Amino acid sequence: MRKSVLLLTLVVSIASQAQDLKPIQLPTAQTEGGRPLMQVLKERKTRREFSPEKLPMQVLANLLWAAFGINRPDGGRTAPSAMNWQEIEIYVAMGDGLFLYNAKANRLDPILAQDVRAATGLQAFVAAAPVNLVYVADLSKTGQAESEAELFTAADAGFIGENVYLFCTSEGLATVVRGSVDRAALAKIMKLGPNQKILLAQSVGYPKK
Amino acid sequence: MRKSVLLLTLVVSIASQAQDLKPIQLPTAQTEGGRPLMQVLKERKTRREFSPEKLPMQVLANLLWAAFGINRPDGGRTAPSAMNWQEIEIYVAMGDGLFLYNAKANRLDPILAQDVRAATGLQAFVAAAPVNLVYVADLSKTGQAESEAELFTAADAGFIGENVYLFCTSEGLATVVRGSVDRAALAKIMKLGPNQKILLAQSVGYPKK
Repeated sequence: MRKSVLLLTLVVSIASQAQDLKPIQLPTAQTEGGRPLMQVLKERKTRREFSPEKLPMQVLANLLWAAFGINRPDGGRTAPSAMNWQEIEIYVAMGDGLFLYNAKANRLDPILAQDVRAATGLQAFVAAAPVNLVYVADLSKTGQAESEAELFTAADAGFIGENVYLFCTSEGLATVVRGSVDRAALAKIMKLGPNQKILLAQSVGYPKK
Repeated sequence: MRKSVLLLTLVVSIASQAQDLKPIQLPTAQTEGGRPLMQVLKERKTRREFSPEKLPMQVLANLLWAAFGINRPDGGRTAPSAMNWQEIEIYVAMGDGLFLYNAKANRLDPILAQDVRAATGLQAFVAAAPVNLVYVADLSKTGQAESEAELFTAADAGFIGENVYLFCTSEGLATVVRGSVDRAALAKIMKLGPNQKILLAQSVGYPKK
């Protein structure tokens, strides 16, 4: 495990230097264990102070699977979605670059070899968190106009965000879901298309000591 | 425990006959235990077939606490909300009547001595589920116009809905969150005010055998 984490860190580091990010194959998520649900709910809360320490690849893989991973053979996910659109995309902004979580391939697909963390929010702590998730709706999957789909896409992002909260609580990680985002500016930086709408962002990391 | 459940059932039954529902003091929620989080996430799915069997009061109390209960002394909840508005109200439609979950008092406050379950959705199974939750945003708490607040209120309902999914998975209950609701008709039946906006509904019960 530790060897593969080191290897992946090396891969990311090289790719970043080359300004040519490579896909990152995530380790298989550990889908057993975790703390008892009611205890986790009892301790769920928002924490905005992060250690700069990076998340190990295994923890990142588990986090993304908990958020919106595939949890059964028919392609069902850990969070529901309206009409089973599965329209929420999770972008992962880290120091090394911006990636898109590919749940099917259990992979981080490279988007930008650039640290865009600060642009995912308006508060100073955002840039300090090692991981910032950005929840983006692919409106082409909804078959509805943006205004009609807003309620459902936002709720769908909420289901995922709560999974992240509970995973972080269970793992001793800090997290905060954020609605204060300069969506127009961030969409430009992320090179999003006209059918992609930024809903929320969520910072994740170890709590500041 | 069993004695208090029987007593509460009796209270509800009498109140209903009298067309004058009384508040129901819920038993203290059991905030320890539950199944391991990752296992729960692995088994999370939507189930639309319900047994007519009622939920014991203790299970209902646990469900509502998991959904959006108070989980710490400062009044924080099991689910986050934008700007800590705590604007989502959970209405509870059961055979005996319609209630409003009062998290602070751990009580079901009576709204209507009428079975409105069928009106909380458009599908036939809705009336069969012993409990239908209706997530309503109190827009007066947001300080924003309805259209501006839509993204945040919908996400806030999503955080709660996912808690309900995971609680139900942990407890062996069936659940489905629903966006297909005749909101205008239901708001009228529920006698909602102009600042109250129905977002989503969620059916809960034991799975059909």
